[in-house]
Amino acid sequence: MTANNPVQHSHPSQESRAPVTILGLGPMGRALAGAFLKAGHPTTVWNRSAGKATALVAQGASLAGTAAEAALASPLVIVCVLDYDAVHAIIRPLGDALKGRTLVNLTADAPFRARQTAEWAAEHEIHYLDGAIMTPTTTIGQSSAVVLYSGPESVYQAHRHTLASIGGTSSYLGEDPGRAAAYDVSLLDIYWTSISGYIHALTLAKSENISAKELLPFAQGISSILPNIMAGLAEQVDNRQYPGHGSNLLSAAAGMKHIIETALSHGIDTSVLTAANDIALRAIDDGHGADGFSFLTEILQKK
Amino acid sequence: MTANNPVQHSHPSQESRAPVTILGLGPMGRALAGAFLKAGHPTTVWNRSAGKATALVAQGASLAGTAAEAALASPLVIVCVLDYDAVHAIIRPLGDALKGRTLVNLTADAPFRARQTAEWAAEHEIHYLDGAIMTPTTTIGQSSAVVLYSGPESVYQAHRHTLASIGGTSSYLGEDPGRAAAYDVSLLDIYWTSISGYIHALTLAKSENISAKELLPFAQGISSILPNIMAGLAEQVDNRQYPGHGSNLLSAAAGMKHIIETALSHGIDTSVLTAANDIALRAIDDGHGADGFSFLTEILQKK
Repeated sequence: MTANNPVQHSHPSQESRAPVTILGLGPMGRALAGAFLKAGHPTTVWNRSAGKATALVAQGASLAGTAAEAALASPLVIVCVLDYDAVHAIIRPLGDALKGRTLVNLTADAPFRARQTAEWAAEHEIHYLDGAIMTPTTTIGQSSAVVLYSGPESVYQAHRHTLASIGGTSSYLGEDPGRAAAYDVSLLDIYWTSISGYIHALTLAKSENISAKELLPFAQGISSILPNIMAGLAEQVDNRQYPGHGSNLLSAAAGMKHIIETALSHGIDTSVLTAANDIALRAIDDGHGADGFSFLTEILQKK
Repeated sequence: MTANNPVQHSHPSQESRAPVTILGLGPMGRALAGAFLKAGHPTTVWNRSAGKATALVAQGASLAGTAAEAALASPLVIVCVLDYDAVHAIIRPLGDALKGRTLVNLTADAPFRARQTAEWAAEHEIHYLDGAIMTPTTTIGQSSAVVLYSGPESVYQAHRHTLASIGGTSSYLGEDPGRAAAYDVSLLDIYWTSISGYIHALTLAKSENISAKELLPFAQGISSILPNIMAGLAEQVDNRQYPGHGSNLLSAAAGMKHIIETALSHGIDTSVLTAANDIALRAIDDGHGADGFSFLTEILQKK
């Protein structure tokens, strides 16, 4: 544990790796600690219940007896727990242990909470970066990991080489500490809504004697056409122009009605698609039936 | 117009193409007629308002004065209109004009209506195929078109070479005439729910000062990981086993809560994701918090 070890940039394989502390050893915290250990960083770990550290200690991690002791062990402290309430339960009692160090918060939560945490960190003279891990634990340390960061660029630049041990692609999104969380919630919005639609479709297919395996290749075909459609809709939304040629809100609502009718005929819950259709119907009632689906951005934003 | 012309299979380019009739000249009907004309089929068209046919007549189509006249012009009659109410408004008054011919209904609607239409066709000694066009009008006649068919296999086999002029990939899904429509509504369920989630995410991102263009590459990244995730969920659903390791309903609900809180803090409608989250919460209340998201197929199917 040599916190003052100078990082040598002569050759990556000859570098002395910077020490890192991981607070929180849930599945993602353990994956992070494992990746830093594998990349040769002296790694200190702490978790409320110490049992989670056993395998990491066997791989060379130092288990700290308290969170403060863990924080003091490294200039870079990473916290990854359930939500920001859990983050604050850990970091607020640390007193000066984090002062002058860098805290990278890889816990997922709402962007306004990231900004509140950044304010608290500034008041306590802690360098603060907020991050969002976009990919599953199995990607950590691999080329497929995707991690977003926001906060002071100087702090990101100072630690990017160390953070690169998390693997994959890192994106620095700007000074606003809430920006990584804002991307995170927006992307998870796409993810959870899409997965909800897919699970509903499998239920509907099953009621029509179509197995999930039979529907799968066609469902995957839908995924393959989405990136192009997304690009077109993104341009419309940024330009606030919502052309309805090709497909308009009236035809979208007609299509959703067929799905809802079929689901109801089989006694299947239709609450998600009914909510989506109701938004389209509101736009149609307002005289926008000939506009494109992207017009709904104007309806969804109520104030 | 040579309905009795034998189709020669010696060489495709030397084939006499079978005559085809198209009833309905909305955007998709016009695209279909254009594709048959381009492939060399004698093509008869009819629409309630004749003005839609002008460009097609210039390309060589025959415009019939009545739907019955159009039906009598070809052994294969394709109908593609708004919904099955519109289909029946056209075909029920035709009397014997369709008797002994093949009617291919490429109109989108619910599967139970496809089965009703097939019953009506059988009573009138009409060979009936029900189809679903899964791709936009711009794909018709191109390699990217995707069309699903169901109904008697002998009818499909008799006309598949002619129908191939629609382009792309054709899939025959089985004897149940409702099967193409059942795939159609299931796939559109995925499509419209996903697009609703994407449009919501663009609204949320904008409220956080993230442009659609900035979010787009990350959103497309989500699309690129979905096919694998879909495959895993499909296997779970077919096996009725819903493992929660990696990601379970409790973590999904926690993630959805962050999105909903952020949207509410910006005055954005949250009805779609709230409906999705409520289904997850119902499963959690029933003691399934540690199960995977695929368990929701059991919750959605109420009877």
